[in-house]
Amino acid sequence: MPACTTIAIERLEGAARREDRDVVVVEAPLQLRARGTPVATIMRTPGHDLELVRGLLHAESVRHGALAQVDADAVDADCDPAAFAGRGLLSSAACGVCGRVAIADLEQRARAVTAETMVTHEALASLPAALRTAQSVFTATGGLHAAGLATPTGDLVTAREDVGRHNAVDKLVGWALGAEVDPSRHVLFLSGRIGYELVQKAVMLGVPVVAAVSAPSSLAIELAERFGVSLVGFVRGDRANVYSHGWRVRT
Amino acid sequence: MPACTTIAIERLEGAARREDRDVVVVEAPLQLRARGTPVATIMRTPGHDLELVRGLLHAESVRHGALAQVDADAVDADCDPAAFAGRGLLSSAACGVCGRVAIADLEQRARAVTAETMVTHEALASLPAALRTAQSVFTATGGLHAAGLATPTGDLVTAREDVGRHNAVDKLVGWALGAEVDPSRHVLFLSGRIGYELVQKAVMLGVPVVAAVSAPSSLAIELAERFGVSLVGFVRGDRANVYSHGWRVRT
Repeated sequence: MPACTTIAIERLEGAARREDRDVVVVEAPLQLRARGTPVATIMRTPGHDLELVRGLLHAESVRHGALAQVDADAVDADCDPAAFAGRGLLSSAACGVCGRVAIADLEQRARAVTAETMVTHEALASLPAALRTAQSVFTATGGLHAAGLATPTGDLVTAREDVGRHNAVDKLVGWALGAEVDPSRHVLFLSGRIGYELVQKAVMLGVPVVAAVSAPSSLAIELAERFGVSLVGFVRGDRANVYSHGWRVRT
Repeated sequence: MPACTTIAIERLEGAARREDRDVVVVEAPLQLRARGTPVATIMRTPGHDLELVRGLLHAESVRHGALAQVDADAVDADCDPAAFAGRGLLSSAACGVCGRVAIADLEQRARAVTAETMVTHEALASLPAALRTAQSVFTATGGLHAAGLATPTGDLVTAREDVGRHNAVDKLVGWALGAEVDPSRHVLFLSGRIGYELVQKAVMLGVPVVAAVSAPSSLAIELAERFGVSLVGFVRGDRANVYSHGWRVRT
């Protein structure tokens, strides 16, 4: 499997909008087996899989014999599967992880987002500056991820920050669950890149539009496409890329 | 606990070097308990802890009653601890995670790095451009983290990329373990921010110098200080901040 893939997108620039192709990084599960028994799933960019597993097992102090690439998405380690008992956390060492909560799992837990909330490119374009203004800690440290919930007209309602980008979204979701706010009428805006877990969290909350300053992964796009989420990346200046369900984005 | 903290650093600018203070983001463990029983540890930036837990449990579809902040670093959820059985992965949802592999754990598994490998600020300053040149996929997608192993004189030996920054380091470590390379004579250079897990991986490999384009977290600095690693952040242009063991960095 290649490390990147080419997909169809809509490229926005000011009021202009055109169909184009874009290259996105692949995010795909690698299954780790111990003598044939699946013991962990690592979400990773394909390539150097054996090195990845060797490095991960080293970091986790798991002793093993030979490593073998079983197929494009599985590596087998010559070690006792029992060495992984109670180590569900192994997967977490590879950030942004965990096969259990993949597409099939999400299908059992969530429905596609069908809200017909429309947003304008102009409103999205105003969000990076609004989020930056709200990022009090980032301003001081330069070390934080931020996530914000905004109205379709570009008013930032609430923002949360954390050293972990998933945490920032969890904090925002936790706030939304306890507030008088209808997620289906809002936009989730992120300061960084869009991994599949962030789209997953948006689906669980029922947010129809996810936008970010940086790039989405292939799996984030796949998930957004499948669960009805409008995904917009590289929101910078008067430009943006629309990766899925562009019908909600007006130019 | 505050979301950021002020620490002593050395600020490098060209050949100049001066002691200064810097504000860094706090990364600290939050213990999640279910009716008093510890069930997970989440590495997070303190603040909005209840929202964080509410959002995380929502994403994981864990049903619960009231949430209560037990103390500054623990939240209790009114739910059966059994709901977390086999869910070691819960922690992973909060990226960059996992209390088990904290400082105490690392002390049992690794020794402090004592290599007297010296590097120059000039060599470090050349690494961002070198790493970018080696980042073939990033150039295409803008969506990847990179990690490189370099000599003290600034020659990039090998670089690896991944959608997850921990994966990029694991791939590099896996490569180093199988190559004719002495980690104690090299610098680990990162394209992004420095979380504690990345310092941990450097310690496990025995790399004496970790440098990056962006900010380290409080826990990354603490770990580097404790395990003898020279930590350098914000390596940009002719500037850099030295957070620990500055004796290895020559100006």
